[in-house]
Amino acid sequence: MANITKKVSWSSRADESGLAGEATPLLNGSEQPRHSRQESLRGRPKEIPHNEKLLSLKYESLDYDNIENQLFLEEERRMSHMSFRCLEISRWIVCGLIGFLTGLIACGIDIVVEKLAGYKYEAVKENIEKYTEAGGLSISLVLWVVLNSAYVMVGSIIVAFFEPVAAGSGIPQIKCFLNGIKIPRVVRLKTLVIKVFGVICSVAGGLAVGKEGPMIHSGAVVAAGVSQGRSTSLKRDFKIFEYFRRDTEKRDFVSAGAAAGVSAAFGAPVGGVLFSLEEGASFWNQMLTWRIFFASMISTFTLNFFLSIHHKKTGELSNPGLINFGTFDSETMAYNLYEVPLFIAMGAIGGLLGALFNFLNNCLTMFRIRYVHRPCLQVMEAMLVAAVTATVSFTMIYFCNDCQPLDKDHTEEYPLQLFCADGQYNSMATAFFNTPERSVRSLFHNQPGTYNPQTLGLFTLTYFFLACWTYGLAVSAGVFIPSLLIGAAWGRLCGILLGQLSSTGKIWADPGKYALIGAAAQLGGIVRMTLSLTVIMMEATGNVTYGFPIMLVLMTAKIVGDYFVEGLYDIHIKLQSVPFLHWEAPATSHWLTAREVMSSPVTCLNRIEKVGTIVDILSNTSTSHNGFPVVVQVTDSDEPAKLCGLILRSQLIVLLKHKVFVELARSRLTQRKLQLKDFRDAYPRFPPIQSIHVSQDERECMMDLTEFMNPTPYTVPQETSLPRVFKLFRALGLRHVVVVNDENKVVGLVTRKDLARYHMGKHGLEELQLAQT
Amino acid sequence: MANITKKVSWSSRADESGLAGEATPLLNGSEQPRHSRQESLRGRPKEIPHNEKLLSLKYESLDYDNIENQLFLEEERRMSHMSFRCLEISRWIVCGLIGFLTGLIACGIDIVVEKLAGYKYEAVKENIEKYTEAGGLSISLVLWVVLNSAYVMVGSIIVAFFEPVAAGSGIPQIKCFLNGIKIPRVVRLKTLVIKVFGVICSVAGGLAVGKEGPMIHSGAVVAAGVSQGRSTSLKRDFKIFEYFRRDTEKRDFVSAGAAAGVSAAFGAPVGGVLFSLEEGASFWNQMLTWRIFFASMISTFTLNFFLSIHHKKTGELSNPGLINFGTFDSETMAYNLYEVPLFIAMGAIGGLLGALFNFLNNCLTMFRIRYVHRPCLQVMEAMLVAAVTATVSFTMIYFCNDCQPLDKDHTEEYPLQLFCADGQYNSMATAFFNTPERSVRSLFHNQPGTYNPQTLGLFTLTYFFLACWTYGLAVSAGVFIPSLLIGAAWGRLCGILLGQLSSTGKIWADPGKYALIGAAAQLGGIVRMTLSLTVIMMEATGNVTYGFPIMLVLMTAKIVGDYFVEGLYDIHIKLQSVPFLHWEAPATSHWLTAREVMSSPVTCLNRIEKVGTIVDILSNTSTSHNGFPVVVQVTDSDEPAKLCGLILRSQLIVLLKHKVFVELARSRLTQRKLQLKDFRDAYPRFPPIQSIHVSQDERECMMDLTEFMNPTPYTVPQETSLPRVFKLFRALGLRHVVVVNDENKVVGLVTRKDLARYHMGKHGLEELQLAQT
Repeated sequence: MANITKKVSWSSRADESGLAGEATPLLNGSEQPRHSRQESLRGRPKEIPHNEKLLSLKYESLDYDNIENQLFLEEERRMSHMSFRCLEISRWIVCGLIGFLTGLIACGIDIVVEKLAGYKYEAVKENIEKYTEAGGLSISLVLWVVLNSAYVMVGSIIVAFFEPVAAGSGIPQIKCFLNGIKIPRVVRLKTLVIKVFGVICSVAGGLAVGKEGPMIHSGAVVAAGVSQGRSTSLKRDFKIFEYFRRDTEKRDFVSAGAAAGVSAAFGAPVGGVLFSLEEGASFWNQMLTWRIFFASMISTFTLNFFLSIHHKKTGELSNPGLINFGTFDSETMAYNLYEVPLFIAMGAIGGLLGALFNFLNNCLTMFRIRYVHRPCLQVMEAMLVAAVTATVSFTMIYFCNDCQPLDKDHTEEYPLQLFCADGQYNSMATAFFNTPERSVRSLFHNQPGTYNPQTLGLFTLTYFFLACWTYGLAVSAGVFIPSLLIGAAWGRLCGILLGQLSSTGKIWADPGKYALIGAAAQLGGIVRMTLSLTVIMMEATGNVTYGFPIMLVLMTAKIVGDYFVEGLYDIHIKLQSVPFLHWEAPATSHWLTAREVMSSPVTCLNRIEKVGTIVDILSNTSTSHNGFPVVVQVTDSDEPAKLCGLILRSQLIVLLKHKVFVELARSRLTQRKLQLKDFRDAYPRFPPIQSIHVSQDERECMMDLTEFMNPTPYTVPQETSLPRVFKLFRALGLRHVVVVNDENKVVGLVTRKDLARYHMGKHGLEELQLAQT
Repeated sequence: MANITKKVSWSSRADESGLAGEATPLLNGSEQPRHSRQESLRGRPKEIPHNEKLLSLKYESLDYDNIENQLFLEEERRMSHMSFRCLEISRWIVCGLIGFLTGLIACGIDIVVEKLAGYKYEAVKENIEKYTEAGGLSISLVLWVVLNSAYVMVGSIIVAFFEPVAAGSGIPQIKCFLNGIKIPRVVRLKTLVIKVFGVICSVAGGLAVGKEGPMIHSGAVVAAGVSQGRSTSLKRDFKIFEYFRRDTEKRDFVSAGAAAGVSAAFGAPVGGVLFSLEEGASFWNQMLTWRIFFASMISTFTLNFFLSIHHKKTGELSNPGLINFGTFDSETMAYNLYEVPLFIAMGAIGGLLGALFNFLNNCLTMFRIRYVHRPCLQVMEAMLVAAVTATVSFTMIYFCNDCQPLDKDHTEEYPLQLFCADGQYNSMATAFFNTPERSVRSLFHNQPGTYNPQTLGLFTLTYFFLACWTYGLAVSAGVFIPSLLIGAAWGRLCGILLGQLSSTGKIWADPGKYALIGAAAQLGGIVRMTLSLTVIMMEATGNVTYGFPIMLVLMTAKIVGDYFVEGLYDIHIKLQSVPFLHWEAPATSHWLTAREVMSSPVTCLNRIEKVGTIVDILSNTSTSHNGFPVVVQVTDSDEPAKLCGLILRSQLIVLLKHKVFVELARSRLTQRKLQLKDFRDAYPRFPPIQSIHVSQDERECMMDLTEFMNPTPYTVPQETSLPRVFKLFRALGLRHVVVVNDENKVVGLVTRKDLARYHMGKHGLEELQLAQT
């Protein structure tokens, strides 16, 4: 893979916490015979040669382990049984709110998109009808191109200029968040607003995108906002839910939000829960899951209810999700045993096509990272894609001779007659001249014979490349629906061809059924989700009969696809060099022990430490540690000292800000009593050390860390194998594991990056380099 | 609660590992100011006064943490990437086999039960028809009673005399197994055989039981058997899957087996996966879940396929589960918004009735533990219940005047005309004179007006008490179907009454829909399962529309029910005094630290220890430790020594058996090289120490533990709070956590019982006593 310069689009601007990387070794020229990474740290070029074998030091971790310091324990001990029950009730209330708001947002998006797309299609349709006879259809094309580009321009400008993190579906970002990685600004109110408007513009602009993926991100942002009881952006603090102002609690709510998003997108509450669990949670807790399910249910119910009002059928509840696959009747569409091998073959095709899609998109994304990183270029690319999409669609419709009689039952929303006879419509237009959701539905449910094989083949081909080009643009939009659409098209094509093969004349292969299987295969081949996708598809079809074939298809697609490249989300995570921790340590990593993977030597602090020392350590931009073991007595030599706790950068910052100093000179304790509330108020945007002024006098003061440090950090001996450290780290959602020798003295620190560095390459275990990209 | 003497029915006979409890403190009159438990240990009466505040020391734990000793690491390091892939493939094969065999067993049970019950009902029906006109129906009653009792007698004898652990549904036992508790003989082949025959007899015997619960246990046994590649009972070792011969791997397969069982029982593959996760797994692993799902899918598919052959409709696949709720058409049975409060009210009723059921069953079980513990008494009780069930049913049918016209569409299986006019049948007989599965289906789907309200009311009342009396008998049978049946009956009653209330005359409340809601409410009120039950009900109805109301109903039922008593399974687990670990530590347990909960002082071993010392420690029946910290040098004083590893009783036993001694006298190392295989061959039935002969010469030898001990056990400092220890323990599935001081010296050991002792009582945190029951 060619080395290219890289600019990270998720956080292209300076971040408030950009200074703080994970705790990394002090660069004191230690005798440790390793660390080419240290060299890359030392140089620290702004844009370094980028290849895939890098891991960024830029991303902070989240702390999913409670910091059980004295303050926390005191609070917990003060709380009665009743207060815990109240907390539990507020958790339920928050989840209900998350579900309600997510459903409401989904409903809003749906209505606005339908309206905007409706205006556009109406205008173009009228124009086409006007010019079909008279000639001059190029005017219609221009109108269509202009309308599309205009919508997309708006959507792209707000994303590229105001909030780049709102681009794409947001699923990789939420995966990272739940994995424990802090992606800057990913759960902010501003991101949500941009996301919502962006997705409306890009879908209405006729791009080959869906509005479902972004719902997951939106739900997560809603969750992160509601659960904190305040908005830092709007500077409003409602003084509620203060207990939830820490990473652990926030993660649980964000899981619920993501689930609510999936639920609203596909009308799949169970699928939503499984999505959250599959992508995020490592520790399964019954009550948490039940709450997540509650949020999901409320979300789909809210959407359903408000859409039913909008459609003037109050109380009918027939729109559980943004995409509606329509009713699959189990009796007419039952599958037979001999179809199972066919399904498996289609799964393999899906896997192959998915791998191709991912490979192409991977190359494209590398190109974009290198050349298309200026916002104006990004906007122009998005507009170009919009124009090309319209042009290609128009050309395809124009040259298509597939005329079908206008069916009274299945009234097309915008049937284009074009050059067809009266009472007929152009069938290519059903696929292209429509929102993708409607196209999917018509591929699933239209009568056999509605589409010519040529139409479907051409459509698959063009849409495949359009969708591939579109994903990764600076617009907020998802890849679910285009994948389904591509799959449904070639699936239906398979069904038609199979039907023609059979000599009996009776169409035994219902094309709609094969469209469904193809859609599952294609989506599975691209995103490689497993259980949750099966359930989502099952719920979206409202039919459990297809569970078994869909599972087979998804499994085949995953196996075949994984043989070539990773899933699309994983590719994008990798391209950002995010230190993502997978489920298990690489299989052959038993060779490594904590001694080899840990960062060492470690910057330690004394239990009672001089303020000046702390400020200096925190200000040292070349290391920017985040967690500091607290020891009994720091030794000047390289001798390790005995561990007695662990304290975080954020805690030290709050202590410095509140001047919690012991003035030794006056020989009395003036250490201000800090409350847990002070830490919670500062969460999650702790100020940088530079903004805190510490006078020369204050530098001479001492700071007693006893009360604030976590006195019982998790530790491992040096001989612990990597998989064992990994399991501890992953199961408990840790941020730091202290490595101690057999006398409980600190010899190293293992952080997320130390573990994420090792991965299975083609030739066995590989080690990624760390870089300050 | 009155103190009663207690005999544990799960393992009423001496167990091969009965000697070995968890590592508990040495009774050397330590200065620790606690431990009333130590007194109860010292006395050790065979049958001690039983109350609910006891925790049994009898149950061993399973070890869900890999023992990463040198042998293990060497093996892992020798393995190539390819071997890991082969392992992965064999895991999939095992899961496929588990699913297939579980489905086959379910299919066998279904066919045999239908046949046996069919013979019985045919015989009784003919007899009744013969005597209806002529008089002398008492002969029919006697025939019915005799047939029922005969079936039940057989089922009860095999359970009570040959394998008491096969009694009941087995769900509490599997919950315990997945939680990490070793219930003796629970996953043996013999148990499976007895279970299958037992459930056939009890269902055919007309008891108020279902055959669904036992499927879960059956699936688990199949999994535990298949995954080990051998049968200890049959003394066959196929020399395959030897890698899987440890607790961690076995647990994963048992999860898959339980899921496959649920899947076959209800045709609910997703529900099965969720059941396994909800009840068992604490660490969620994507690949594992996917494998579990595979097993579930194969299971329901196998059942479906073979049943379709049996019903001579090969390939039609319309029987995904043992119970078939029939098709709920979403259009005719859609719910309206104003029905939601009604559903919630029904959930509350379900919670109340469930709590009543559980309370009564709790009292009854206490009575049984005290008085009905001899096998012959148990058989007699079972036969009595069978006779009473038949008599009550007959009486109800006899005195019921609810005659309905014989419908051509819904042909009843065994319509009883009795005193009805020609072309009519007795509607009470539909409910009573039928297998419970059919009764449930007819309550869901029969036309409105099929049942009189009085019929339903009477049926609910009698069946409620019959089912309550039946659960806990020494027969193998489940409580799912009776619960559904009770709920469906009163739910349908609610529907009818609501229909009559409405003035319009039009029946707006479809009784079938209300029957479904009632069934969910009643089942939820009894078993208190949450997410998994929602999904199981959704899948069993084949309809996702009801997801939201079912969730609401289950939630209400759980909240209302939990206010009074626990769920039925938890009650039975508690009555067995099993040290079950819940999801989280009790909320108000931050007061406690590792120092207070740990067992201390601990029996430690030297790294190179005298064989005689080891034999003496293992033979000490008054302590029967299971895990021994290995230290650098055991001190004679009470001074703690430095930790360097942890070794298990089972490992020491294998070492002793293979005479892995260093003969110091001859001053050369003759320590035999042991392989991991030797440990695997001995797993899981390690011989007791008494069976190993160690000569006086050998007692003087030394044993080097370095290679076999786990050199990196998880440790916590003394100040760690209970919730933190709990989290570590639960998330990683540990068996022992070593408590060390700040110099890494062993000061105590925390085991499952030390954590399970603390639970939330009515007046805050309570501590259970430990007892050797």
